[in-house]
Amino acid sequence: MSASSLRLSSAPSDPALLTLTEVAAAIAARRVSSREATQACLARIERAQPRLNAFLSIEAETALAAADAADAALARGAAAGPLHGVPLAHKDMYYDAGHVTTCGSKIRGDWVAPTTATALQRLKDAGTVRLGALHMVEFAYGPTGHNPHFGPARNAWNPDHVTGGSSSGSGTAVAARLTYAALGSDTGGSIRLPAHFCGVSGLKTTVGRISRAGAMPLSQTLDTVGPLARTVEDCALLLGLMAGADPADPTALGGPVPDYLAATRAPLAGRTIGIPQSFYVDDLDPDVAAAFDAAIATLERAGARIVPVVLPDQARLSAASTLILVAEAAAHHAHWLKARPEEYGAQVRARLENGFAIPAVTYLEALGWRGPALAAHLDAVAGLDAVLAPGAPMPAPTIAETDLGGAPDAEAMIQRLTRFTRPVNYLGLPAVSVPAGFTAAGLPVGLQLIGRPFEEAVLLSIGAAFQRETDFHTRLPEAP
Amino acid sequence: MSASSLRLSSAPSDPALLTLTEVAAAIAARRVSSREATQACLARIERAQPRLNAFLSIEAETALAAADAADAALARGAAAGPLHGVPLAHKDMYYDAGHVTTCGSKIRGDWVAPTTATALQRLKDAGTVRLGALHMVEFAYGPTGHNPHFGPARNAWNPDHVTGGSSSGSGTAVAARLTYAALGSDTGGSIRLPAHFCGVSGLKTTVGRISRAGAMPLSQTLDTVGPLARTVEDCALLLGLMAGADPADPTALGGPVPDYLAATRAPLAGRTIGIPQSFYVDDLDPDVAAAFDAAIATLERAGARIVPVVLPDQARLSAASTLILVAEAAAHHAHWLKARPEEYGAQVRARLENGFAIPAVTYLEALGWRGPALAAHLDAVAGLDAVLAPGAPMPAPTIAETDLGGAPDAEAMIQRLTRFTRPVNYLGLPAVSVPAGFTAAGLPVGLQLIGRPFEEAVLLSIGAAFQRETDFHTRLPEAP
Repeated sequence: MSASSLRLSSAPSDPALLTLTEVAAAIAARRVSSREATQACLARIERAQPRLNAFLSIEAETALAAADAADAALARGAAAGPLHGVPLAHKDMYYDAGHVTTCGSKIRGDWVAPTTATALQRLKDAGTVRLGALHMVEFAYGPTGHNPHFGPARNAWNPDHVTGGSSSGSGTAVAARLTYAALGSDTGGSIRLPAHFCGVSGLKTTVGRISRAGAMPLSQTLDTVGPLARTVEDCALLLGLMAGADPADPTALGGPVPDYLAATRAPLAGRTIGIPQSFYVDDLDPDVAAAFDAAIATLERAGARIVPVVLPDQARLSAASTLILVAEAAAHHAHWLKARPEEYGAQVRARLENGFAIPAVTYLEALGWRGPALAAHLDAVAGLDAVLAPGAPMPAPTIAETDLGGAPDAEAMIQRLTRFTRPVNYLGLPAVSVPAGFTAAGLPVGLQLIGRPFEEAVLLSIGAAFQRETDFHTRLPEAP
Repeated sequence: MSASSLRLSSAPSDPALLTLTEVAAAIAARRVSSREATQACLARIERAQPRLNAFLSIEAETALAAADAADAALARGAAAGPLHGVPLAHKDMYYDAGHVTTCGSKIRGDWVAPTTATALQRLKDAGTVRLGALHMVEFAYGPTGHNPHFGPARNAWNPDHVTGGSSSGSGTAVAARLTYAALGSDTGGSIRLPAHFCGVSGLKTTVGRISRAGAMPLSQTLDTVGPLARTVEDCALLLGLMAGADPADPTALGGPVPDYLAATRAPLAGRTIGIPQSFYVDDLDPDVAAAFDAAIATLERAGARIVPVVLPDQARLSAASTLILVAEAAAHHAHWLKARPEEYGAQVRARLENGFAIPAVTYLEALGWRGPALAAHLDAVAGLDAVLAPGAPMPAPTIAETDLGGAPDAEAMIQRLTRFTRPVNYLGLPAVSVPAGFTAAGLPVGLQLIGRPFEEAVLLSIGAAFQRETDFHTRLPEAP
């Protein structure tokens, strides 16, 4: 066990230390009030915020008023849904009607959302209480957590280190137990990177599994909505509430929503997990390699069949993913880039402006190759329930060494950061992130289980089984 | 009546002069055999082909064998479907497994299709007999009917004039009664232009109304499948057979297929038709203007309510349509343009190569504007059943004056040709083309009824009512 982590007792006295599933049950059973849970989170937020910069908006008064209303409703027997009275905060790109939704930007610094994102509305309908809004990379376009407008979010395990991005506040806030869970979004790794670097669980959904209506768009081809949470079980609970058809987003899949929570209780025995023989095992930091090897052994011991898998060229998938992302992001921002270029941070603006150089034919070829590439991938993983890979080749670098404005090797390091996440986005696949270890310096290391389109249930099942065998997800940073 | 047309008697002795609906009924009732109908078409094809160059492949022997098989099946009481034994030919871009499908190109000059297009398969399942393959512009990318590989298709009303394109053979073959109907495709006007210039009926379907699986792609955003035929009723019959969901094309609309044939029998009274106050009435040749005015009077007399309509900027829609088309066409052809550029005709190659200059952001902006532009259009046409517009501002120009290799004003004339068709493609709307008059020189002039997405039935109803009031669609060129 690392020097900077401590093991939770099985019944923490601080209700903020419960999992989402636990606190929801405790509130429903009136063992914990919504006010107690909300106060517990707010107390931690107050202590942590100066050090972690996890929130862009902390709304203590309205949160407590909403908690009191939830408690009153429950006393009347009027529970809104499975998350009645549970306080949550989300990446500040989920439009919430009447609330400022900054998208981590100056341009939207005082923009009041006119509508509420479908994913968020479904959580609200389930009874959640709004704690505030979580930090994020400007317009969700960056993998580290730097933000020139609001300062960087800082890693709960060591505030000199990045959180990963773009769901920077979601990663560090869940790690520090400031919120029970948080929506993130994953276009090139923006859920899985903070999950990896902050030591939390995360779910990158299949494109189309959760409606994107009212979620700030970055890339219509690649954007996905998903949660970061303390456990895979919590991710499953949230997915079940958010998944399904949405008239406001024709790309959202209809039909029955699987029982994802039930999937997390399924046994691991009989599952077959593929271990890539290249790319995801190349150039790993020793701590990452050790965690990966240990996880393979754990899964095998717990009954999974471990087999090697030879995947198609992942670097080519990554290149195509980047190309689509930069072109679509530039198109979404073209108007503002022309009208208000000085209001962007220098790095995000430079990233976006790269998109203007992409020819339409190159973009369309990258899109057109997606079908054949997915077919080749599915051929390669035939018979496998999941592919296991590290979330990134290294633990969280420092904020200083990844500062594009200063550090000399920052660009190369940032490229390396997203190496393992982008191929998954290109193929539109789901992936579950799980904490899998700590470095000697006490920084978390995570893994991703990559699955077939719309087979989130299989991944959640394997991820939950892994968490029954390990305790990495239960550890928490000492402060606050 | 023009000097070059003659009025059909009500019971033509040549079975090739029946409509599709009539010949299908006659074969089903065994008043005409499939062999007789097929022989009648083949006899006309043999006479017309040297003058019109309508076919790329004439398959008399196999057609007659198929007709005999159809007659034998019918004698056994085994009718395949509503088009049992009806001989048809289609634009040579509908893949027909085992048959060469040239796409009007040298590159695919001997390419044998491995699968059959869904639209074509549905007509085959209905019992049709293959006569051969119809001429088309190289890769369907041109509005006139020129083709350097196979020579131009020629207008049945005057072989010195263009047919319109790209469904050049479909237009002139239906006009000359060489086939009862023909599949075309419409990406920028390729059904409506030949319908207009050749004096036949045509249906440009809503994007998604008919599966595009196995139809040569030009632009995935704009491509549509549809028929050219002698009457609107025949178009309705064909649409009903082809429409509906297709596992091979996820963009094809599912759900019940309306009874399009029943729609053609609905009264005109109560319909409201909008007459554009600009763009579609600007810069018309006098013969086109006269036909347009006469059609308005005819429709009003027959019970339609005629109202003015102010449409959003159609030139901007046209520009966006062209931009999407050129980018997507270049992407589809990028591989061949690099590997086999010398096998393209000079004009089509130049058109395709223009696509390499389009930036991805510009393309994506053109795509992204489609939703708002459609919303603005639907606002403008609120309360209307259709908008009436000419198919083109002029009748068919000569082949010589539209030859990009020689005629000095050809490019400007070609731009003018497609002026009225491209906005409809950008919005994805359906349109029915109907013959509406003849010039003093005996060239046909047509109109288009433009409707709401997936409301083909309304357009077919109005178009059929117009054909009950007029006889332009019953006239035919003197030869062959």
